[in-house]
Amino acid sequence: MKSYQEMSREELLEEHERVIGQYEKFKEMGLKLDMSRGKPSSEQLDLSLGMLDVLTSESNVINQDGFDCRNYGVLDGIIEAKKLIASMVDVSVDNVIVYGNSSLNIMYDTISRSMTHGVMGSTPWCKLDTVKFICPVPGYDRHFGITEHFGIEMIQVPMSQTGPDMDIIENLVKNDDSIKGIWCVPKYSNPQGYSYSDETVVRFAHLEPAAKDFRIFWDNAYAIHHLYEDKQDSILNILEECKKANHPDMVYEFCSTSKITFSGGGIAGLITSENNITDIKKQMGIQTIGYNKINQLCHARFFKEQCDLKNHMLKHASILRPKFETVLNILENQLSNLHIGDWNCPRGGYFIAFDSLNGCAKRIVSLAKEAGVVMTPAGATFPYGIDPQDKTIRIAPSLPKIKDLEIATELFVVCVKLASLEQLLQK
Amino acid sequence: MKSYQEMSREELLEEHERVIGQYEKFKEMGLKLDMSRGKPSSEQLDLSLGMLDVLTSESNVINQDGFDCRNYGVLDGIIEAKKLIASMVDVSVDNVIVYGNSSLNIMYDTISRSMTHGVMGSTPWCKLDTVKFICPVPGYDRHFGITEHFGIEMIQVPMSQTGPDMDIIENLVKNDDSIKGIWCVPKYSNPQGYSYSDETVVRFAHLEPAAKDFRIFWDNAYAIHHLYEDKQDSILNILEECKKANHPDMVYEFCSTSKITFSGGGIAGLITSENNITDIKKQMGIQTIGYNKINQLCHARFFKEQCDLKNHMLKHASILRPKFETVLNILENQLSNLHIGDWNCPRGGYFIAFDSLNGCAKRIVSLAKEAGVVMTPAGATFPYGIDPQDKTIRIAPSLPKIKDLEIATELFVVCVKLASLEQLLQK
Repeated sequence: MKSYQEMSREELLEEHERVIGQYEKFKEMGLKLDMSRGKPSSEQLDLSLGMLDVLTSESNVINQDGFDCRNYGVLDGIIEAKKLIASMVDVSVDNVIVYGNSSLNIMYDTISRSMTHGVMGSTPWCKLDTVKFICPVPGYDRHFGITEHFGIEMIQVPMSQTGPDMDIIENLVKNDDSIKGIWCVPKYSNPQGYSYSDETVVRFAHLEPAAKDFRIFWDNAYAIHHLYEDKQDSILNILEECKKANHPDMVYEFCSTSKITFSGGGIAGLITSENNITDIKKQMGIQTIGYNKINQLCHARFFKEQCDLKNHMLKHASILRPKFETVLNILENQLSNLHIGDWNCPRGGYFIAFDSLNGCAKRIVSLAKEAGVVMTPAGATFPYGIDPQDKTIRIAPSLPKIKDLEIATELFVVCVKLASLEQLLQK
Repeated sequence: MKSYQEMSREELLEEHERVIGQYEKFKEMGLKLDMSRGKPSSEQLDLSLGMLDVLTSESNVINQDGFDCRNYGVLDGIIEAKKLIASMVDVSVDNVIVYGNSSLNIMYDTISRSMTHGVMGSTPWCKLDTVKFICPVPGYDRHFGITEHFGIEMIQVPMSQTGPDMDIIENLVKNDDSIKGIWCVPKYSNPQGYSYSDETVVRFAHLEPAAKDFRIFWDNAYAIHHLYEDKQDSILNILEECKKANHPDMVYEFCSTSKITFSGGGIAGLITSENNITDIKKQMGIQTIGYNKINQLCHARFFKEQCDLKNHMLKHASILRPKFETVLNILENQLSNLHIGDWNCPRGGYFIAFDSLNGCAKRIVSLAKEAGVVMTPAGATFPYGIDPQDKTIRIAPSLPKIKDLEIATELFVVCVKLASLEQLLQK
C-alpha cells in the first residue's frame, strides 16, 4: 500500500471515506475499553496471592533482629525488607530506607521536605524565588504533577534511545543554581521503554551542578520488569557511579514492589547515600513512628520462602509479553507503510509510546474516546499536559485482556488513520 | 507517716539515709525496664492475630464497590474501611479519608501541606513571617515535635480536668491571625487522661479565630480506649458541634487503629468537613495513587466477621486495667501521705501523669534511669522538651509485665522520695 504522503488528494479522499466507514462501525460496537494507565491485570496480581498465606495467626511475627513487627518502631524498615529492596536494585542494605506502599509518595515527600527544610542544611526551596527541575520528555505525568504542584519550573529536555540529551543537561545544571533536580526513569522509561546507556549514566554521575542541593531523582520503577527472558536491558548502578565520580550524595533512587506483588499494597524504598539517609531520617522521625512492618515481613518472607523474585518476574513477563506483541503486531501490520506514525518496541516496562504526525495526538485520543476506548490524555507525558508538537500518545497494554486489546488497537489504528487523513486533506 | 513537709531536718536526714539504702538495693538488681512509651504489650497485640487469617489466597479481594483491593486506585480509602473509622468516632463516611498506618503521619502531612499550599486557598504558611500554634500542656511530645520541626511558634496553655483553659484560648485566637491551629487530645488526654467537658467542646466549636485558616487539630487517639466497662468518659462530637456553631470547616479530627489492632500495621483516618476533604484530596492525588487497600479490607472484615469492636476494646481494657491499677496502688500506698507528688487516675488512654515537687522531675527520671528503669524524659510533655516547673513525668504502664511494673514503680517511688528529700534538704 502507498504511504499517505504519496497519495493524491483523490486517493486521500477515497481512503478517508473508507476509514470513516470503519470508524463508524467501531462506534456502533459500544466499546468500553481502557488503555490509559499502567495497571497490572488481575492475572498478574494473582501471581502474588500466596502472599496472603505467608502470615497467619500461627506465624512468628518477630523479625530476625527481634522486633515484633506488629508493634511500633523501626523507622527505616526491617532488615528483611531492606534486603528485598536492595536486591532489586543491587545495592547494600545500608543504602535503603523502606517506606509504605508507594514510591510516588516517597518522591512527593522528598520534594516536600526539600521545600520546607532544604537538603542537608541548604536553604529551604520555598524560601527561594525560583526552583527549577529538568524534565526529560516525554516522561511520567505523575512526576510532572509533583513539581507543578510545588510551583517548580520545569525545563524540558528531549529523550533519545540512550537517555536524555546530556549535552543540554550538563550545561543547564552547571550554569543555573536554581536547578535543583531532574526526573529520570532510567530503565524501560515511561513512556518510551528506553534504557539509559552506560555513557549516559556515567555522565549523570559526573554532573557538576551549580546548586549544592541538586539531586538526581532516579525513579527505577521498572528495574526488573523485563518482557523477555533472553533480551533484557541493563543499566549501570547510579549509586556506585556517583560514588566513583566523587558525588556520592547526588542521587535519590526510588523503587517499589507495586508492579511485582500488589499495586495497592506493596512496599517502596528510597536508595541513597548514608549522608542523605541521616539527613532524611531526621525528618522521617518527626513524620512517623514507622511504616507497616507486617507488610514488610510478608513481602520478605514471600520472596524468601515461596518464590524466587527472578522467576516471579518471568511469570509477569509471560503475561505481559503477548499483550505488548498484540499491540505491536497490529501497529506493524497496519501502519508500518503509511508513514503516519512511529513507535518503539520496548523490552520491558509498561508502555509503548506512539508518535503520530505533528498535531494529531489530541484528535486521535479524542476519536478513540468517542468510540469507547480510553487512552492516556494526549499531552500527559509532558509538563503541564502540553505536548508542543501534539504527537506523543502513551499506550498501556497491561490491563485489558488480549481479545479487548486487539479491538482497542484496531480502533486506535483507525483513529490514527482518520486524524492523519484529516490533517493531510487540510493542507 | 508524717508528710515530708512536716518533718524536721533530722527526720529528713534519717529518711534520706533510709531511702538511699533502698535505692542502692534497686541499683544492685541490674534492672532493665521501660515505662517510657505508650506501646501495647504483645498480649494486646495477640488479640488481633486473627486479622492475619482474614485474607488468604482463596479470599475474595474485591470490595463491595467492585474495586480489586490489590490494584491501584481508590485515593481516599475503600468504603468498608471508611465505615470502620466512622464508627470509631461516630461520624458519617462522607467525612472520612482513610490513609496509611499512622495518624501521626496524617497530622504531619496536614501541617506540611498547610506550610507549602495553605488551607483552602489561604497563603501558604511558609510565606508568612510567623505561624503559631496553641499547645495545651502537658501534651503529646510528637505533636510538639511536628510544630517545632516546621518552625511554628508554640504558645502554651494550661490543661485542667475539663480541658485546656478556654478563656485564654478564645482570647488568643480572636486577636492574633498568626495563630493557625491548636493541638488537642480531647479524650483520655496524653499524658493526664483527662477528657474535655461538654462546655469545653462547645466553646471550641464557637471559637472565633482571626485567621480564616485556623484549624483545631483534634487527635482523638483514645476515642474508644477505655479502661473500665462501667466507668467510661464520653465527649461531644466536635464535627457536629462545629457544624451547629456555623464553623463546619474549623476542625480536623484524627484517629487510628494503632492501639486497637497492630500498632505498626493499622489504618488511620482523617475526619473533617466535605469542604476540607475536597481541598485535601487535590493534594493527596498528587502525593499518592492510594494507600494499602489490602490492609484496609483486612481490618474491615476482621471487625465485621471475626470480632465486635466494642468487645475487642474490653479485652484490651482487661489487659491494661490491672497494669494501671498496679502502678496506682503503689503510688497510693507509698506516696499519698507524703505530699511530694500528685497524679491522676485515668479511666482510659495510655498514661498516668505524675507531678512531683517543682524542680524534681528531671532528677527523678535520671535516678530511675541510673537504676535501670527508663521513663519518658522529663519535659517531654512540653514544647521544646522544657517543663518550666520541672515537675511532670509521664508514666506508661502498657508495655511491661505486671511483675516488672511492680518493681519499676517501687523504684520510681524511691526515686521520687530521694529527689524530694534532696530538694527539701537543700532549702
